[in-house]
Amino acid sequence: MNALPREFSLIERYFRPLAGPGALALTDDVALLRPPPGLDLVLSADAMVGGVHVLLDDPPDLVARKLLRVNLSDLAAKGAAPLGYLLTIAAPAATPDAWFASFAAGLAEDQHLFGLSLLGGDMTSTSGPFSLSLTILGTVPPGQAVLRKGAADGHGVFVSGTIGDAALGLDVLQGRLADPDGHLVRRYRLPTPRLGLKLADFAAAAMDISDGLVQDLGHLCRLGGVAAEIDTALVPRSEAACAAGPQWLSRCLTGGDDYELLLAVPPAAEDRLAAAVARSGIPLSRIGRFVPGPPAVRVRGPDGQPMHFARPGWSHF
Amino acid sequence: MNALPREFSLIERYFRPLAGPGALALTDDVALLRPPPGLDLVLSADAMVGGVHVLLDDPPDLVARKLLRVNLSDLAAKGAAPLGYLLTIAAPAATPDAWFASFAAGLAEDQHLFGLSLLGGDMTSTSGPFSLSLTILGTVPPGQAVLRKGAADGHGVFVSGTIGDAALGLDVLQGRLADPDGHLVRRYRLPTPRLGLKLADFAAAAMDISDGLVQDLGHLCRLGGVAAEIDTALVPRSEAACAAGPQWLSRCLTGGDDYELLLAVPPAAEDRLAAAVARSGIPLSRIGRFVPGPPAVRVRGPDGQPMHFARPGWSHF
Repeated sequence: MNALPREFSLIERYFRPLAGPGALALTDDVALLRPPPGLDLVLSADAMVGGVHVLLDDPPDLVARKLLRVNLSDLAAKGAAPLGYLLTIAAPAATPDAWFASFAAGLAEDQHLFGLSLLGGDMTSTSGPFSLSLTILGTVPPGQAVLRKGAADGHGVFVSGTIGDAALGLDVLQGRLADPDGHLVRRYRLPTPRLGLKLADFAAAAMDISDGLVQDLGHLCRLGGVAAEIDTALVPRSEAACAAGPQWLSRCLTGGDDYELLLAVPPAAEDRLAAAVARSGIPLSRIGRFVPGPPAVRVRGPDGQPMHFARPGWSHF
Repeated sequence: MNALPREFSLIERYFRPLAGPGALALTDDVALLRPPPGLDLVLSADAMVGGVHVLLDDPPDLVARKLLRVNLSDLAAKGAAPLGYLLTIAAPAATPDAWFASFAAGLAEDQHLFGLSLLGGDMTSTSGPFSLSLTILGTVPPGQAVLRKGAADGHGVFVSGTIGDAALGLDVLQGRLADPDGHLVRRYRLPTPRLGLKLADFAAAAMDISDGLVQDLGHLCRLGGVAAEIDTALVPRSEAACAAGPQWLSRCLTGGDDYELLLAVPPAAEDRLAAAVARSGIPLSRIGRFVPGPPAVRVRGPDGQPMHFARPGWSHF
């Protein structure tokens, strides 16, 4: 019998070891899943393209981990727990084995860290840069998923972690900024999905920040039919981001790739939020509030004056 | 408030109308699905790249329908029923609105035909050709999914429809072959997922033929630990494929893109298969049988002699 073509040996060597329950060892057309009874399924799909979301020469293991974490961040923003994922890879035919080996090693590391496994996927060639797509499945108790819709007048605007590091990290990699201790680049290459919070206990609306704080906050406003006011003095920024200087503030607020949580929290729930912060160790900061009025995001700058932005966030088109 | 960037207006205009239950109108990070109780979930993901799986100038509505049907064919090959899908699109930033309009119109048509809807996805730019990825979800009664593993000595080898049309259709589009009535090109551009058969009633193993009959039959052999013998005189070919002449036979058997069913059927189940054919109108033909021996596919040519192939099917790498 003919030897199997390289496509199959790549799958067998690098991806089969990642396959979990239901994946049928990646030997079938499909994965089979008996859904955990009494839970809702949460599904999300994100694409990642070389030269767009990650640099073409980014280390493949970090590309893989970022792809997985970007999707895990979508689950985190609903208060869901990870279950499994499907992955499609379109890569140049000349991609060396070492690239796939490193890519799969990155997936293995994060599968172990976050407790999920590969269910299936597809691998194809392309004449363009590598183009990845990951569909993630998670679970949440029925009715406990926190949606983007739900922000109301009087709710506080909260974010997790620090804002702007990843956008500045890209600027570092592209030679526009220095990063003495590498913090910004690490944050660009490896976001931290904020899994493990029971968001339904305290958040009325939630999403993760992927396209820039100002633009993404606009989504919560639009769906809630409210405006938001935030104060840049309250927006948490890392030491490295602050050291870049005040001229980078605007970039931090609109640059994207943060994968931090953005929440609307009713005043009565702030105690429960504080308890969740204490329990989880995930920092959550109040940066402003939702107010009545047509959907709009108003940003108070360091001088107390309103800030305006050429574009509030990232768009591919 | 700033106008939303084009990415969001594309989603709103062309993709939101495709969103079904659980999709949250494509306004959230995720889709929410309460799994139908008492059924297993069947999941599959396939990628499709411009210039690889479809031609760059193929009509966008047919590209969309082929992408959906290729995934529906994976469900069909397990005896599963469609439920919904997630879609990621990486497209050149200069892609005109008309391309997206036509693409979405194709999806709308096939969603209606096959009874499923869009659950979510992502849209990004790429410097390369368009790169699509679709994850499909289906359902099957518990334990009723027919796997690739299960072929045994004495089972018949069956295929649905006709074999080789799509591969020849690509040859037509690339100027190597004539196609007076357009049948071959139609079969290349628009496969027919063979949904609706209760495969578990009569098939011991099943898959769909995507990479060429000979190569894909090799997968059933490998997983079953058996060999297969097929007779080219029994392999159903369309009038158009036969008219191309005997020199195209080998291409029909190895060219791929058929999206027809390939089944292992125990002799005792052939009556039930015949009844299913009569009920469904889906033609199934016996082309050979599984025999003892190490995994191998033996093909008897028109002259009664064994045929050999430079490569048994398609591989991307």
